[in-house]
Amino acid sequence: MRPSSSRSELFGAVEARGGAAEATGDRAWLQALLDFEAGLARVHARARLITETESDAIAAACDADRFDIAEIGAAAAEIGNPAGPIVKALRELGPAHKGATSQDAMDTAAMLVAKRALVPLLEDLHGAAGAAALLAHQHRDTVMAGRTLLQQAVPTTFGLKAAGWLMGVLDARAALGALVDRLPAQLGGAAGTLASYGDQGPALLPLFAEELNLRAPDVPWHTIRTPIAEVAGGLALSAGIAGKIAGDVILLAQTEVGEVREGDNGESSTMPQKRNPARAIVAVACERHARANCAVLFESLAAEHERAAGSWHAEWHALTTALAATGGAVAAAADSIDELYVDTERMRRNVDDDILAEARALGHEVSAPEDYLGAVSVFIDRALARYNE
Amino acid sequence: MRPSSSRSELFGAVEARGGAAEATGDRAWLQALLDFEAGLARVHARARLITETESDAIAAACDADRFDIAEIGAAAAEIGNPAGPIVKALRELGPAHKGATSQDAMDTAAMLVAKRALVPLLEDLHGAAGAAALLAHQHRDTVMAGRTLLQQAVPTTFGLKAAGWLMGVLDARAALGALVDRLPAQLGGAAGTLASYGDQGPALLPLFAEELNLRAPDVPWHTIRTPIAEVAGGLALSAGIAGKIAGDVILLAQTEVGEVREGDNGESSTMPQKRNPARAIVAVACERHARANCAVLFESLAAEHERAAGSWHAEWHALTTALAATGGAVAAAADSIDELYVDTERMRRNVDDDILAEARALGHEVSAPEDYLGAVSVFIDRALARYNE
Amino acid sequence: MRPSSSRSELFGAVEARGGAAEATGDRAWLQALLDFEAGLARVHARARLITETESDAIAAACDADRFDIAEIGAAAAEIGNPAGPIVKALRELGPAHKGATSQDAMDTAAMLVAKRALVPLLEDLHGAAGAAALLAHQHRDTVMAGRTLLQQAVPTTFGLKAAGWLMGVLDARAALGALVDRLPAQLGGAAGTLASYGDQGPALLPLFAEELNLRAPDVPWHTIRTPIAEVAGGLALSAGIAGKIAGDVILLAQTEVGEVREGDNGESSTMPQKRNPARAIVAVACERHARANCAVLFESLAAEHERAAGSWHAEWHALTTALAATGGAVAAAADSIDELYVDTERMRRNVDDDILAEARALGHEVSAPEDYLGAVSVFIDRALARYNE
Amino acid sequence: MRPSSSRSELFGAVEARGGAAEATGDRAWLQALLDFEAGLARVHARARLITETESDAIAAACDADRFDIAEIGAAAAEIGNPAGPIVKALRELGPAHKGATSQDAMDTAAMLVAKRALVPLLEDLHGAAGAAALLAHQHRDTVMAGRTLLQQAVPTTFGLKAAGWLMGVLDARAALGALVDRLPAQLGGAAGTLASYGDQGPALLPLFAEELNLRAPDVPWHTIRTPIAEVAGGLALSAGIAGKIAGDVILLAQTEVGEVREGDNGESSTMPQKRNPARAIVAVACERHARANCAVLFESLAAEHERAAGSWHAEWHALTTALAATGGAVAAAADSIDELYVDTERMRRNVDDDILAEARALGHEVSAPEDYLGAVSVFIDRALARYNE
Repeated sequence: MRPSSSRSELFGAVEARGGAAEATGDRAWLQALLDFEAGLARVHARARLITETESDAIAAACDADRFDIAEIGAAAAEIGNPAGPIVKALRELGPAHKGATSQDAMDTAAMLVAKRALVPLLEDLHGAAGAAALLAHQHRDTVMAGRTLLQQAVPTTFGLKAAGWLMGVLDARAALGALVDRLPAQLGGAAGTLASYGDQGPALLPLFAEELNLRAPDVPWHTIRTPIAEVAGGLALSAGIAGKIAGDVILLAQTEVGEVREGDNGESSTMPQKRNPARAIVAVACERHARANCAVLFESLAAEHERAAGSWHAEWHALTTALAATGGAVAAAADSIDELYVDTERMRRNVDDDILAEARALGHEVSAPEDYLGAVSVFIDRALARYNE
Repeated sequence: MRPSSSRSELFGAVEARGGAAEATGDRAWLQALLDFEAGLARVHARARLITETESDAIAAACDADRFDIAEIGAAAAEIGNPAGPIVKALRELGPAHKGATSQDAMDTAAMLVAKRALVPLLEDLHGAAGAAALLAHQHRDTVMAGRTLLQQAVPTTFGLKAAGWLMGVLDARAALGALVDRLPAQLGGAAGTLASYGDQGPALLPLFAEELNLRAPDVPWHTIRTPIAEVAGGLALSAGIAGKIAGDVILLAQTEVGEVREGDNGESSTMPQKRNPARAIVAVACERHARANCAVLFESLAAEHERAAGSWHAEWHALTTALAATGGAVAAAADSIDELYVDTERMRRNVDDDILAEARALGHEVSAPEDYLGAVSVFIDRALARYNE
Repeated sequence: MRPSSSRSELFGAVEARGGAAEATGDRAWLQALLDFEAGLARVHARARLITETESDAIAAACDADRFDIAEIGAAAAEIGNPAGPIVKALRELGPAHKGATSQDAMDTAAMLVAKRALVPLLEDLHGAAGAAALLAHQHRDTVMAGRTLLQQAVPTTFGLKAAGWLMGVLDARAALGALVDRLPAQLGGAAGTLASYGDQGPALLPLFAEELNLRAPDVPWHTIRTPIAEVAGGLALSAGIAGKIAGDVILLAQTEVGEVREGDNGESSTMPQKRNPARAIVAVACERHARANCAVLFESLAAEHERAAGSWHAEWHALTTALAATGGAVAAAADSIDELYVDTERMRRNVDDDILAEARALGHEVSAPEDYLGAVSVFIDRALARYNE
Repeated sequence: MRPSSSRSELFGAVEARGGAAEATGDRAWLQALLDFEAGLARVHARARLITETESDAIAAACDADRFDIAEIGAAAAEIGNPAGPIVKALRELGPAHKGATSQDAMDTAAMLVAKRALVPLLEDLHGAAGAAALLAHQHRDTVMAGRTLLQQAVPTTFGLKAAGWLMGVLDARAALGALVDRLPAQLGGAAGTLASYGDQGPALLPLFAEELNLRAPDVPWHTIRTPIAEVAGGLALSAGIAGKIAGDVILLAQTEVGEVREGDNGESSTMPQKRNPARAIVAVACERHARANCAVLFESLAAEHERAAGSWHAEWHALTTALAATGGAVAAAADSIDELYVDTERMRRNVDDDILAEARALGHEVSAPEDYLGAVSVFIDRALARYNE
C-alpha cells in the first residue's frame, strides 16, 4: 500500500497540527473498518458461528497495510460506502461480516476513529491546560487591564485571564473525557433487528463491544444518532475554547497592545517588526472548520427510518474533519500559549490611568491598580486546584 | 404593563407549541432579570452590605408587572442591553445591583430562563417518551417493513421503530435533565474580579447562587461560555431527535405508504383525501430553527477578553429561540405520535414479497416476515425497561 | 386590532434598529397576505372569473387593521399556516382565493415582505455608503497603520480603509438592488399546475404578478426555491459587510488604539472612561443572526416534491429574521460610522517606528509613512467615483 | 513530485464525483499559486521592473511538477500559508513576487481554482439540465400524482416535475455562469496600497489581471470579501438544487412508490430486491458539505483591518470543499437522473382515486387525472424553451 493522506498536504500542516489529524486519516478509518471485521470474526468464533481457524484467517488479514486505499475508495463509489469492498476482499478468505450490515462496520469504525482521535486530542487539551496553568501560576500578580467590549474596564491580572482559559480547557477535557467510555459499538444487521443471528443476537452484542473495547448499546442506533451528536457537542465546545484562547492571544499581540508574543515563529521576511501570532491564527481557522462540521453532525440526527439516505453518508467526512479540525485548534492554541512571551512591563504600562474610575466612584480608597483586584487570587487558586485534582 | 409577546403571534402558534415558548418570552426574561436583582439584594442584606429594609424594598419592586417592557427595550437600545434600565429604575428605590455588572444580570437571567424553560421542555420530552413507549408496547408484534435508504430491507415491527424513538427521547431527556442542576449563576463584577466587594466576593458567590437556586461557579464565566455551549448541545440533541420522529411520521403518512396518520387535524378543505401530518411538519420546521440558533451559541464560545463585543449580545435572541424552537419541535413531535392512528393492516400489507430475500440467501428457513424478527422483542424490552427506570 | 410586535420588545431595540425590522413584523406579513388576496380578486375580475362587485368587496376587506393577528395565529396552528384562516374570513365576503393554494399566498407574501423590507434596507445601505464615502473623502490623507493579522504592516490612510468599507457596501447594495425587480409572484394552485383555471392559468400568471408589481415567473416555484436562496445570498453579503465595518470600528476603538469613537452613546455609568462602540457591537450581533437564518434559507432549497414538508414552514421565520437582522446590522453599522469621531493625531502617533521596514528593505527612500502610500489616493478616487455613479 | 490527493481517497469517490473534485486538489492549488507568480513576473517584465530573461526564468519554473507538495505544506506550517515557501523557492531563480504579498498569491490562486473548477461544474450542470430536459420532453404527458407535504394532492405529469428540476438547474447555471467573468485578480501588496510600486501600481493591476484572464478589481479586496461570498452564494444555490433533485429521486424510488429507479448500480448483495438510489444519496451527502462550507465562507466576510487573522485562513479549505462538494452534488444528481428508469405504469397506477376531489369540489367535470392537468404543458414548454435559448 502506498502512503496516503486523508486530506490536503498543501494546507494540512497549516490547518491541522496535533495528533488528531493523523488519527482521522484514510488509514485510520481503514484500520478501524478492519478492526470491526476482526472483532466480529473473533466473536463469531466465540459463539461458534464460525471456526477458530476461520476467525484467525480473517483477523490476520485485517491489516490496513494489506489494502490499497485508492482501490477500495474506487470500489466504494459503486455501492456507496467503503465497508462493502473490504467485506468482499475478506470473504475470499473466510466467512467474514456474517449477520452484519455495512452500517454496522461504518458506525463502529466511526466510534473507533473517534475514540482513537480523542487520545491525542485529550493530550493536546492536557497540554493546553498545563500551559494555561503555568501562566496562571506565574502571572498570578501580573497586573493588566481587564477589558470588556474591548475597552479597559477595571484591573485584573494575567494570571486570572490564564485561569479562565484553564477553566475552559478543563471543561472541554471533562466533556470529551466523559465520552471516551461512552462510545458504543454498532451491530444491528440490515435493519437493526439482528435477525440473521436468530435468538443469539442480543447476547452477541455485548461480547462484540467488549472485543473492540467499546460500550455495548442496549439497542442498535443506526438512526438514533445520539453518539454522533454527543461527540459533536464535545468537539464544538473544545474547538470553541481553543478559539477563545487564540482570540485573546491575537488581541494581546496587537502592535498597539504588545503584551504577548508567540515563540520564535511567524516573522515576516520583509517586515521584521511583524510578529504574527501564527499559531493562534491557525487555531481560529480550525475552530471554524470544526464548528461547521459539527453542525453537519447535528443535522444528521434527523435520520430516515432504519438507515438514513444521505445524512449518514455526510457524517463520515464531517466527523473526520470535526475531529481533525478540533485537534488542530486545540494543538495550535496549546502551542500558542506554551511558549508565550509575556511582556509584564508592557501589561502594567498599558493600564489606563482611568481604570480606577469605578473604584473611586464606588468610594474605594485605591491608589494603584494593584489595590483593586478583589478575588483574583482566590479565583486563580480555584482554577489551579481543579487542574491539580 | 400591557401584555407583550416575545415573538410572532402570526407564526408563533404554528412554530412554537409547547411550554418552552412561553417560558422564553420577554416577560420571562424581564422577571429573570428582576429575580437577579432581588436575589442580589437579599444576599447583600445577609452580608450586611445593605440593610434588610433596603433589601426588602428592592425585592418588592422586582415584579415584572411593575415594568413596561417596551420602555425598557427602548432604553436598552441606548446602552446595549436591558439590564441597565432595570437597574436605573431600581436604584430610585435603594442600593440595587451593588458590585454587579450588567453581564452578571444578563447571564444569570439567561440561566434562569433556560432552567425554567427546561421544565416544560422536559415535560414535553416526558410526554414524547410516554407516547413512544405506548406505541412500542402496543406494537411490539406489529410487523412492518424495515427500510434502509428508503428501500424495504428486512422485516421489523412498529414497536421497534417506536422503541428507537423512545431511546432517542430518553437520551435527550438525560442530556437536558443533567443540565438542570448544573446551570450556574453569574457574579463577577465589571471584569470578573468581584473587586468592588474587596475580600468578600468569593464568599458571596455561593450564597448568591443559593438564593437563585443555581449552581455556584468556581470562577465567573463571562467569557468562558461552557454553560451556554452545554445548553446548546442538549437542545440540538433534543431538537434532532424530535426531527427524527417527525421525519419518520411524515414518511409513514405518505399516501403511498399510509401506515400512520396524525389525529384529527391537518385536513385540507378542498382535498379531503389529504391528511397532512401537520404536527410532524411543525416539528421539522422547529428543528431547523433550533439547530441554526444552537450554532450561534457555539460560535459565541470565542469571546473576547473579559466581555465579548457582539457574540454575547447575539446569545440572548439565539438562546431564546433555541429553547423555544426545541420546545416547539419536541411538543409537536409528542403531539404527532400521541394520537397517532396506526394502520397495522396496511403495515403488514405493504411488506414486500421480496423482504425475506436476505433471510433466504443466508439459508434461514422462513415463510413469513414474522419468522425473521431476530432480537426485536428483546430490544423493545430494553427500551421499555430504561423508560420505566 | 391591538398593536402587535413581531419579535422581542425587550431586545428588539438593541438588535434590530433600522427600517427593515418594522417591515418584517406580523402586521407587514398580514398585509402582504391580504395584498395577495386583493390582487388575486382583481385579476379574477379582469378575467371575468368573478364580478367586479365581488372583487371590490374582497379587496376592500383586505386591510390588516380589520384582522386580529393573534386570532389568525391561533387558527393557523390548526392547519399549519396563516393563509388558511385569512381565506376563510374573506370567503364570508365573496369568492376569494379561487384556484390558489395557501403556498401561493405565503410565497407571494414572502416576496412582498422581502421587497418592502428591501426599501429601508437599501436606504440603510445608502446611508452607510454615504457615511463611508464622507470618511474616505475627508481622511484621504489621514495616515494610519495598515494592519495585517492585527500587526502593523505598512502605512495606509483612514480614507482607504473607509473606501474599502464603501466598496463593500456598494457591492451589497448592488446585490440587493438587483433583486428588487427579480422577486417573483407565486401562483400555481395545489401542485403548481394551475389546474383549476383550465386553459386560462398561464395567461393569468403575468396579469397577477403585474397587479402586485412582482415579476411573473415562467413556472411556479413552489419547490424550486431560487428566489429565496437569492435573497439569502444578498442578505448574507450585506450583513457580512456590516460585520466587517463594525469589527474594524470595535478594533480601532480599543482603549490601546483609540483611533475612533462612536458618537455620544455607549458610556458606562460607573466607568466614564469607557466608550463602548455600542452600535458596532449591535451590528456584530445582528450579523450572526442574519447569517444563521440565511443558512436555514439555503437549507430549504432541498424541498420535497410539489410542496416541502417542513423546510417551507421554516422559511417564514428565517426569512423574517434574516431580513430584520441584516437590516439591524446595516443600520447599526451605518449609525456607527455616521457620527464617528476620528482621532487623526492618535492615528498618526500610533504608527510604529518600524512601519517603514519593508520600504527600506526594498530599497525605497522613505523618511516618513507619508512617503510610502503608493496607490492609496487612486484607490480612494475609484471608490468615490463608483459611489457617485 | 509524487502524486498527491487533496482529500480522502477512501471516501472521495463516494462523495466527490464530478470534475470539480480534481480541479480543487492540492495540485490545482499549487499550479494556481505558480500561475500567480508567473503572471506577475510577466507583468513585471512588461513594466520593465525585471528583465525579460528574469521573467522567463521565473515563469519556466512555475510548473507544479517541479515542486513537492508535502515539502511546501510542511514549510507552510511555519509561516502560516503555502505562498511563502513557493516564493522562497522561486527567488533562488530570480526576482519573483516583487511588490506582492502572500495574500495576493493566495487570493488570486483561490479565484483561479474557483474559475477552473467552475468549468467542470458548469459542464455537470449542463449535463443535469440535459437530462432533466429530456425527461421533461419525454414525460410531458406521463401522469403522476402531484404531492404536497408528501400527500397526493392533484394530478401532474412527470414532465412537469422534470421541468421544475430543469428550471432550478438553469437558475444555478445562470448564477455560476455569471461569476466566471467576474472573479477578480488580487494585487495589493502588504496592506492593499501597492506601495512598493510607487505610482505604477494602479496601472499594473489591470495588466496583471489580464495576464491571468481574471477581472481587474478597482481596489484590492483583501478584506472586502465580496468575490468569495458571491461564489458561496452560487455554490449554495447549485448544491441546493442538486439536493432537491436527489431528494425527489429518493422519494420516488421508495419501495412503496417505485416510480423511478437509478441505472444499474446500488444493488445490495444480500437483498437483491433493494435498488438503492446510490447516486442521489451521494448528492444529498455532498449538499450538506457544500452548504456547511459555504457558511464558513459567508462568515469570513467579517475580516479584520487589512488582513484577517484566521477567517482568511479558514477560506482555503472551505472554498476547496465547497467547490468539490457542490461539484459532487451536481454530478451525482446528474448521473442519477441521466440513466433514470421511469416506471410510467406504476406512476399512473399510484395515482389515488381521490386525487380529483379538489376538481370535483370546484365543480370541474373530470373523469380521469388526465382531465385536470391545467397548464402543465405550457409550463414544460417554457422550461424547455429556456433550456434551448
